Amino acid sequence: MTRTVLESKTKTVIIGFDEPFCVIGERINPTGRKKLAAELEAGNFETVIKDALEQVACGATVLDVNSGAVFTNKMAEDPRYADNNFVEPPLMKALIEIVQQTVDVPLCIDSSVPAALEAGLAACEGRPLLNSVTGEEERLELVLPLVKKYNVPVVAISNDDTGISPDPDVRFAVAKKIVERAADFGIPAHDIVVDPLVMPVGAMASAGQQVFALVRRLRDELGVNTTCGASNISFGLPHRHGINGAFLPMAIGAGMTSAIMNPVRQQEMEAIRAANFLMNHDANGGEWIRFAKVLEAVEGGMTFAEASSAASQAAGGRRGGRRGRG
Amino acid sequence: MTRTVLESKTKTVIIGFDEPFCVIGERINPTGRKKLAAELEAGNFETVIKDALEQVACGATVLDVNSGAVFTNKMAEDPRYADNNFVEPPLMKALIEIVQQTVDVPLCIDSSVPAALEAGLAACEGRPLLNSVTGEEERLELVLPLVKKYNVPVVAISNDDTGISPDPDVRFAVAKKIVERAADFGIPAHDIVVDPLVMPVGAMASAGQQVFALVRRLRDELGVNTTCGASNISFGLPHRHGINGAFLPMAIGAGMTSAIMNPVRQQEMEAIRAANFLMNHDANGGEWIRFAKVLEAVEGGMTFAEASSAASQAAGGRRGGRRGRG
Repeated sequence: MTRTVLESKTKTVIIGFDEPFCVIGERINPTGRKKLAAELEAGNFETVIKDALEQVACGATVLDVNSGAVFTNKMAEDPRYADNNFVEPPLMKALIEIVQQTVDVPLCIDSSVPAALEAGLAACEGRPLLNSVTGEEERLELVLPLVKKYNVPVVAISNDDTGISPDPDVRFAVAKKIVERAADFGIPAHDIVVDPLVMPVGAMASAGQQVFALVRRLRDELGVNTTCGASNISFGLPHRHGINGAFLPMAIGAGMTSAIMNPVRQQEMEAIRAANFLMNHDANGGEWIRFAKVLEAVEGGMTFAEASSAASQAAGGRRGGRRGRG
Repeated sequence: MTRTVLESKTKTVIIGFDEPFCVIGERINPTGRKKLAAELEAGNFETVIKDALEQVACGATVLDVNSGAVFTNKMAEDPRYADNNFVEPPLMKALIEIVQQTVDVPLCIDSSVPAALEAGLAACEGRPLLNSVTGEEERLELVLPLVKKYNVPVVAISNDDTGISPDPDVRFAVAKKIVERAADFGIPAHDIVVDPLVMPVGAMASAGQQVFALVRRLRDELGVNTTCGASNISFGLPHRHGINGAFLPMAIGAGMTSAIMNPVRQQEMEAIRAANFLMNHDANGGEWIRFAKVLEAVEGGMTFAEASSAASQAAGGRRGGRRGRG
């Protein structure tokens, strides 16, 4: 049975076919978040700390940390800041340190800059997930040695030097190639988490069925865990959380074992909690019943993040969690 | 490709693997609805008319009509009313006539009394769905001849004289027996819609996975369409619409093609509309985009039934539907 083991300093999270769906919080990412990028440029980590706490309270069991910031003011003063190879490694180190001081979940180190991945790996306690390798030759040669050196699992995105294929058979073949190349480095399949790439269903009518079929094949033929950027499915559509809220249970039913997503969204998290229960990954419905109390607090007027944080703090106090004792 | 054809006087609905999920509205049923039973006893069909209109507006494409009323006042005056063989046949005829005058969708004739089924079949225009036969010997012998005589499809519930088995393999075997017995009567498999029986996940942790596996087997091995009483899955649990809203997309992903359910519930209907889109059964997302406008009206303060009825009337007017021209 495929099990991908992630660790923080104190916590272990398993991504696996017989485990609750692993929610990887995507919020700590300055790409497209101008305000966050400006804060990071000023050395201000308040939003990062808030996002870390909120995402964990809402149900993320792993946090993605992406260092892809553009520091426009510094760039004007010093041309070296135009190069992400200069900006990202120290920023990744700082982000990882701040997030580890704030929450005790495993992290997912996310950058397109290999030096930032390595800076993250050096700074990270436990066993993080590396995000990501692709089927591109240069990327394979740069990232797989890091995966091997640090003995960590890696997200494998199924595009290659020819780009993202609209043909799911080609995307499967790319995933297979990555698994085989990883094996050449001595990296086992259970440490590869494949992202089969989710297309927007508004642009490609078969997008949903493609993913469900690919996830089944990846599981049955390659024995790997899977992940995805779940919200891509609803790109450009009205009421996209309704699409996401059906996509996630269907993907889980097909065998998807994790997603990189925004956990501070009630509709998506409700769908995942219910799907866990229906997959027999929530013994006696205990998690569902606790979650139902959060939903009641939302009906009483709290935001989902507030209600989740309140429930999390109350549980921390009762259960003597690390932060509760701090 | 399995296609179960239902007809009203003017409309055809196909239940099939390549069709949008068929929502069979369950509301016209006096079982457990004391107020409705009392109205029917007084010859008052106002609630029936309201329920018929509302369910169709909310997205039911077939309406279940159940005649299982208990007429307590009449029973006190005339002991014949204690016998459902006396009460149900004329009530079924009256219900079918009223519903047919109100809406133009195919009907599902639902009773445990064979004479009521036959009264419904005689009164019904088009090609209704008969609900139901089971694997019980007496029921097979009484209902299958009606199915043959009227050339209608039938719901086959997978219990038999030994009751409802908790073992899904036994329930599959009962379904197979019904399909075989139907074949002896010259009834084809595409006119059998199997209900694999949904257990409450709160009482049986494997209930969800059982249904998903059974639906796949029924489709792959027997080639039949499937239905279920969808809300059974969440019986006894808090926030059950959240469970239902994940169960339905997962069941659809596994191959379920219809459900007998309450369509006047936003969360379930939103999940089904999104699942249709993700199964590539909503060309260009046209249905989703129309539905998103209903959701916007709900956010603006209308109930789901009001918003659905308003959208339905506007569409009827624009499209020159039968009722719009009336």
